[in-house]
Amino acid sequence: MMLDSAAAAAQLAEVAAEIGRTVDVLVELDVGMRRTGVADADAAVTLAREVTEHAALRLAGIGFYPGHVRASVSEQGPSLAQVARQVDAALEALAHAGLPAETVSGGSTPAAWRMHEVTGLTEVRPGTYVYNDRVTAALGACEWDECALTVLATVVSTAVPGQAVIDAGSKTLGREPIDAARVGSALGAVESNAAAGGWGVLLDQPEVVVTRMSEEHGILDTSRSDWRPRVGEQVRVVPNHVCYVVALSDVVYGVRRDVVETRWPVAARGREEPSAVPAW
Amino acid sequence: MMLDSAAAAAQLAEVAAEIGRTVDVLVELDVGMRRTGVADADAAVTLAREVTEHAALRLAGIGFYPGHVRASVSEQGPSLAQVARQVDAALEALAHAGLPAETVSGGSTPAAWRMHEVTGLTEVRPGTYVYNDRVTAALGACEWDECALTVLATVVSTAVPGQAVIDAGSKTLGREPIDAARVGSALGAVESNAAAGGWGVLLDQPEVVVTRMSEEHGILDTSRSDWRPRVGEQVRVVPNHVCYVVALSDVVYGVRRDVVETRWPVAARGREEPSAVPAW
Repeated sequence: MMLDSAAAAAQLAEVAAEIGRTVDVLVELDVGMRRTGVADADAAVTLAREVTEHAALRLAGIGFYPGHVRASVSEQGPSLAQVARQVDAALEALAHAGLPAETVSGGSTPAAWRMHEVTGLTEVRPGTYVYNDRVTAALGACEWDECALTVLATVVSTAVPGQAVIDAGSKTLGREPIDAARVGSALGAVESNAAAGGWGVLLDQPEVVVTRMSEEHGILDTSRSDWRPRVGEQVRVVPNHVCYVVALSDVVYGVRRDVVETRWPVAARGREEPSAVPAW
Repeated sequence: MMLDSAAAAAQLAEVAAEIGRTVDVLVELDVGMRRTGVADADAAVTLAREVTEHAALRLAGIGFYPGHVRASVSEQGPSLAQVARQVDAALEALAHAGLPAETVSGGSTPAAWRMHEVTGLTEVRPGTYVYNDRVTAALGACEWDECALTVLATVVSTAVPGQAVIDAGSKTLGREPIDAARVGSALGAVESNAAAGGWGVLLDQPEVVVTRMSEEHGILDTSRSDWRPRVGEQVRVVPNHVCYVVALSDVVYGVRRDVVETRWPVAARGREEPSAVPAW
């Protein structure tokens, strides 16, 4: 469990004691994303000490998420050097305080190829890489043919010239942007693909972009393509951000060549947590 | 069933015949959204005739979705007058062709209060009004205290000054924008609320805005508020776009005062459709 406050440590310790368990705790360090995590090495030591005061908690080390590192892989050097300096300072301060970190856990999919540049890391935590997606390809963290997950959609309307409407909108693809400006100078074709913006592209025709969405409609711009879609035709969309697409679906199908080989229910989505309700 | 092409009519007729059913069909008219729907009265008559050629289909009338009408309620007059002219032209042409429309189906939540200005309408189709949301309030189509659905979230971090992090991010709230520019001159307080942008606001403190999100984290800007959130404290977030939030959840709880009175499973979300897979 990763946390960044004495209050969270106390609440966790209470629950852990109640159920008779000891919980391993990582002190979260903010390495630049400004989301969660303590600000610096001193704050990390203070919180680490507080964790050790709870019998039901065991201080296991530190963790961080470098979500602000969004440049293409080749351009991540300066950001990662900054992360490395902060992690190093925290590790040194903890060791000096007699609380050496056993686990040093961090990383992300875009930075996964270069996380070894952060000295002392014992664990990398990428997520998107399981399937990859359009943003990951645009950042140069995967190749286009390593985008493993697509949304199978059907063309339902071609009534408005220059576009085709598919039955996959924001409730299927997610409204997750691709930020061409942040992508930097990534791979050639994929870079111009990213510059095209929108909410996803066709796997087999990356020049065809989902330019607009409603909840149940995705609108493909066909004006820059020779493709003349027919109503009823199926297409495969590579989404901008695959994590979100998985969370919007009941099931992921495993396909090898043209054969559906397996079916994975998506278990950890939209979870009902009745235990949270009585506190209302 | 609403459709806008001869191809869709033929495919629907084939399935209807297969299962021995007659299906009522509305010809969809594009009244300005440029998403789906035939362009004009002539095209509507042509498609209506094609529908009547299928024994398994019954021509029931016309339908449309005025999704482009996004001004505040008081400023919808010119857009609705334009919609009315198009609908009227289609109805006249259909009657002239001996194919009078029995059903005239249209509308949306933002335009629901004024759809009677479209002469001939027999059916209004709002959806969001069931719960309402921040955008609906900002458009003046509901009052703030008519926003019935909130997301119950817990403060999990206050480590970064000027913000509080809750355990509801884009996988709970949806990344649905509120477009202050399009909202126009709506209700006073709610208008400035809309101008604040972001992804949702606290029900009881609309000046506290969800300014950033990750998948599982929402970041509240507390810098313009006297509120000093504690880790573990619960808050109720009014989302920008409620339809999306419902689709992201397993269950909606019905609460009256402080009592959870009922529990509604969200049935039509992320639906697995194995019948669609063999066509791969």
